[in-house]
Amino acid sequence: MKPTHTLRARRFEAGSVRETEECVADEVAVALIYNGVSHAVMMASPQDLEDFALGFSLTEGIIDAAHELSDIEISETAQGICLDLQITERRMQALRERRRALTGRTGCGLCGAESLDQAIRPIAQVSRSVTLRAADIQQGFAAMQAQQALNHATGAVHAAALWQDGALLLREDIGRHNALDKLVGAMQRGDWSRSVLLLTSRASYEMLHKAASANIPLVAAISAPSAKAVALAQDAGITLIGFARGAAMTIYHAGAGQVSA
Amino acid sequence: MKPTHTLRARRFEAGSVRETEECVADEVAVALIYNGVSHAVMMASPQDLEDFALGFSLTEGIIDAAHELSDIEISETAQGICLDLQITERRMQALRERRRALTGRTGCGLCGAESLDQAIRPIAQVSRSVTLRAADIQQGFAAMQAQQALNHATGAVHAAALWQDGALLLREDIGRHNALDKLVGAMQRGDWSRSVLLLTSRASYEMLHKAASANIPLVAAISAPSAKAVALAQDAGITLIGFARGAAMTIYHAGAGQVSA
Repeated sequence: MKPTHTLRARRFEAGSVRETEECVADEVAVALIYNGVSHAVMMASPQDLEDFALGFSLTEGIIDAAHELSDIEISETAQGICLDLQITERRMQALRERRRALTGRTGCGLCGAESLDQAIRPIAQVSRSVTLRAADIQQGFAAMQAQQALNHATGAVHAAALWQDGALLLREDIGRHNALDKLVGAMQRGDWSRSVLLLTSRASYEMLHKAASANIPLVAAISAPSAKAVALAQDAGITLIGFARGAAMTIYHAGAGQVSA
Repeated sequence: MKPTHTLRARRFEAGSVRETEECVADEVAVALIYNGVSHAVMMASPQDLEDFALGFSLTEGIIDAAHELSDIEISETAQGICLDLQITERRMQALRERRRALTGRTGCGLCGAESLDQAIRPIAQVSRSVTLRAADIQQGFAAMQAQQALNHATGAVHAAALWQDGALLLREDIGRHNALDKLVGAMQRGDWSRSVLLLTSRASYEMLHKAASANIPLVAAISAPSAKAVALAQDAGITLIGFARGAAMTIYHAGAGQVSA
């Protein structure tokens, strides 16, 4: 499935109207099905879906390690894309129990979270650290911008990237959570143990939660963090940077990522 | 609950580091509970929560009219905010049946949607129309910018606004879907039958769906639409405008909102 569509539009500009061709990002309903049981449907950009399946499974705590997801089958339907995932019986058992606890309370909510207690999941403490200069982060964002192909075509999508010793691993999606899930999936195939996370978006509660589950010691976002994201960064020991634009950036919490001027 | 927090941070700028005080937007887990049954938990900005409760109930199709939501009680817990909502027994019956269909399939997914078929809800056709000039839309966005108080303080939140004959109704939230739900709730208290919808964000599938459920004939977004949003605009007969910046804007679909140069 192509990640973009071209369509005819009309552009108002400088007092006149003209016909144009516009490239828009696709947005597809993606169903995640574990061992035959439908778990969630997300609206996402239809590329890097293997990465998405693995990353979502990890950041949602459905599996703890990549090898626990043994198979991914992707099929298209008229309504969207199905990701048929096979996880170990032990993990499926845990997922069934989690879901039984939810359905027993007649519940169904965002990301499977039934009540406030269940929604506010405990956050992992990061166990690795990293040291870098503010200029490294600036360089990472510059490298990132050059690789945002889908965003260049459509102006509509977010990116999440790992930056490590001048190397960049980047994923894009119409949803910023999905971009990060895809990235967490992709990073399992390499050694990104000295990397930091760069985001084109804001840093919200969910983004910090996902970063912690991937053991990332530093998160830098182009836009603002939420108060909850700062609190999570403190809990997890993650260095959290916001408004990273050019050489300027604001450090909201100094954790396991050491930044020098 | 205050919608912002002030906290100490460090700012890297022009090669030097200094201590600053930063204002960040709060992000709170909000549980929606219908007639005692927990339905969903959303991360949201903690203001205009009555509007949010009413708007969410309408755009999610849990109720069809404002009078079907008879009571809203707001309480704070250590983990977040509970919205205890009372809806008519007829509506509660329908919600129970919807949820039974979901839990029977052991399902729990985004916004209560278990499978792709359930996720792709049918969209309503808008029944009202509006005629305005491109300059009116430009004026609306200018008025909107002046009223985004929370965004001015934090740089972190989205806004959705109705614009009608020079009058503006605006709501802000850390989540763009929530901002629109709050707006749909707020518009029930007035006559906004000649209004158009302005968004500081992108126009996605969900945003068009919510606009259609509120019978809004024209949606204008500062950023890009997704391909799915354009398709929904066609289905619902909504005029969809993207990249509305100053006097320039792109019309992706010409529906019930007539725009002249």
